[in-house]
Amino acid sequence: MKFIIQKEQLVQSVQDVMKAITSRTTIPILTGIKIVATEEGVTLTGSDSDISIESFIPKEENETVIVEIQRPGSIVLQAKFFSEIVKKLPTSQVELEVDNLQTVIRSGKSEFNLNGLDSEEYPHLPQISEENIFKIPTDLLKNIIKQTVFAVSTSETRPVLTGVNWKIENDDLICIATDSHRLALRKAKIDANTEQTFNIVIPGKSLNELNRILDDHNEPVEIVVTENQILFKAKHILFFSRLLEGNYPDTNRLIPTESKTEIVVNAKEFLQAIDRASLLAREGRNNVVKFSTIGQDVIEISSFTPEIGKVVEELVSESIHGEELKISFSAKYMMDALKALEGTEVKINFTGAMRPFVINPLNDDSILQLILPVRTY
Amino acid sequence: MKFIIQKEQLVQSVQDVMKAITSRTTIPILTGIKIVATEEGVTLTGSDSDISIESFIPKEENETVIVEIQRPGSIVLQAKFFSEIVKKLPTSQVELEVDNLQTVIRSGKSEFNLNGLDSEEYPHLPQISEENIFKIPTDLLKNIIKQTVFAVSTSETRPVLTGVNWKIENDDLICIATDSHRLALRKAKIDANTEQTFNIVIPGKSLNELNRILDDHNEPVEIVVTENQILFKAKHILFFSRLLEGNYPDTNRLIPTESKTEIVVNAKEFLQAIDRASLLAREGRNNVVKFSTIGQDVIEISSFTPEIGKVVEELVSESIHGEELKISFSAKYMMDALKALEGTEVKINFTGAMRPFVINPLNDDSILQLILPVRTY
Repeated sequence: MKFIIQKEQLVQSVQDVMKAITSRTTIPILTGIKIVATEEGVTLTGSDSDISIESFIPKEENETVIVEIQRPGSIVLQAKFFSEIVKKLPTSQVELEVDNLQTVIRSGKSEFNLNGLDSEEYPHLPQISEENIFKIPTDLLKNIIKQTVFAVSTSETRPVLTGVNWKIENDDLICIATDSHRLALRKAKIDANTEQTFNIVIPGKSLNELNRILDDHNEPVEIVVTENQILFKAKHILFFSRLLEGNYPDTNRLIPTESKTEIVVNAKEFLQAIDRASLLAREGRNNVVKFSTIGQDVIEISSFTPEIGKVVEELVSESIHGEELKISFSAKYMMDALKALEGTEVKINFTGAMRPFVINPLNDDSILQLILPVRTY
Repeated sequence: MKFIIQKEQLVQSVQDVMKAITSRTTIPILTGIKIVATEEGVTLTGSDSDISIESFIPKEENETVIVEIQRPGSIVLQAKFFSEIVKKLPTSQVELEVDNLQTVIRSGKSEFNLNGLDSEEYPHLPQISEENIFKIPTDLLKNIIKQTVFAVSTSETRPVLTGVNWKIENDDLICIATDSHRLALRKAKIDANTEQTFNIVIPGKSLNELNRILDDHNEPVEIVVTENQILFKAKHILFFSRLLEGNYPDTNRLIPTESKTEIVVNAKEFLQAIDRASLLAREGRNNVVKFSTIGQDVIEISSFTPEIGKVVEELVSESIHGEELKISFSAKYMMDALKALEGTEVKINFTGAMRPFVINPLNDDSILQLILPVRTY
């Protein structure tokens, strides 16, 4: 294998595939990056066997030569060293030459010799038939991820809860995450080419890495789902993730349909007041704040830890309808939920101090955040 | 005590004194910030008993009222909570009121009650007589610190080496740091009001914190030295540090006066080549690279780790005078030294492969970096 490549594109591709690579793998060759040069260009692959990322660098783009292939071939190079080396090379063009696994990287007066590994030993990526494809604009996909993935469970006691449940119902994609103390739900219209339905669970970690690798623009991402894999196809990038096994719990019955107290409040002011009220709660009972309505339009948020002190925040709400309310909840869960919502005003629907409550952006039912209260009053 | 203060100035002062405060203190009251309000303004103090920082907020500055003192007094508040609270308060004016150690902080509709501690319990700062004062412009002081402090020892086996040796000789301030593998020396002309001489050792940690707290401008810092304390006086800030006990070794005899090979090289190109050559050395023998002269103007830097690979860097130097040379040294020490030097070109003087060598900026003897080679050739 021998090719000359633009350093900038090589660095970007290496950075992308590095997101799948971990040094804590039990399969030694997965600490490497697979590099394959064909007449069409260069393909890099990184994998930790749960997530696999393939990045393609085409021979030419926008009538500019990016790679000059002199001899096709393939090699696996230690990711840790290769990624640091390419970043620090002195010139904008880099030559890579492989003979008998010995790899020479040349750039200006700098010459690296790396011991490579045989690419035949590298695990094959899953073969995915592309029958069931649907598309989502990249920026919408990133939003969907950000608005749900924070609510997945970090505990392995119920592994299926460490993922986000994705299902398609009537051209709607519905994404749900819950750690059984709070729940995040996001719906979006999608553009599907078949009348497919599915109900899968994608590891939260995979979605976080996917979000990091995608740029914020409105080009569509193609998504292919199989029995145990999901593939996201963006420009020059293939992102594979395994799916979690097991049935995701039915969360529909958790979401209250009635409301006894409805409050509309400025999202930013509310977030900041909760943040301040939690400052003295942090040391006390698991970051819990008290919330109560006062009269027709005032909300009081407070916390008290005897050894430190207390804080009282007052907030004028846009409106309070229904019963008076005193309730306690985790300030962290509320802040996570408020940060995930779009829009300047949020609507909170309570059905009593002991029941889960629901937060939506005002006039937007595509996002829903649900929080279970804490019993203290 | 009761006063109304501009939030911005309060936040800045709290941030400054926080640099002296650690939660790992054996004196509980030192986890607090002492706040004293007088007719002149508000003084905050933080200390870990090695470093003490006092920040003064004047009643007025540039004809703008900053503090409105309603009742003088003093209190000690938990630094961790107080610093987080002031940062997050909603309005630009903050009211602070103390009654019987109970402290109320008010800002808009936000009200915090904090349990305070009696300021009488707070240790007194050292009393320093201001007889022996000298001055350094702030930006020069910051440079002096940055160019030496990285070379202090991190090991406690010889505590005196964890500090930087400062001495005054003939209106020259001479600052030296060494961990016995490398040495950094910086000289600077100072403006002293007496014919004082001293020879002290300032903890490296203190100098790092001082550098962080000082802004980069050329207003002078006044420096007062006593037997066991040093005080830096900047605008509205007093920075006290204890001195290290023990005699600092005489490093003069370590610095070679003759030279067998003199090399002049572009500092940035040399730094980058060393950086790349060290990439494959990192896993091997303690980050050591080989350096050799080739002919009249070429330098080769290389490293080799059998299980990973090798790297060879060539660099055209401005000039090579004297004997041919092959030497090995720590890439990290060389990079630290090059980053500390000013100027585009550096001069390196070797006296053989087994002897310490000296790096200077070309035509500037006020800075000197010395590195001991590693025996490998």
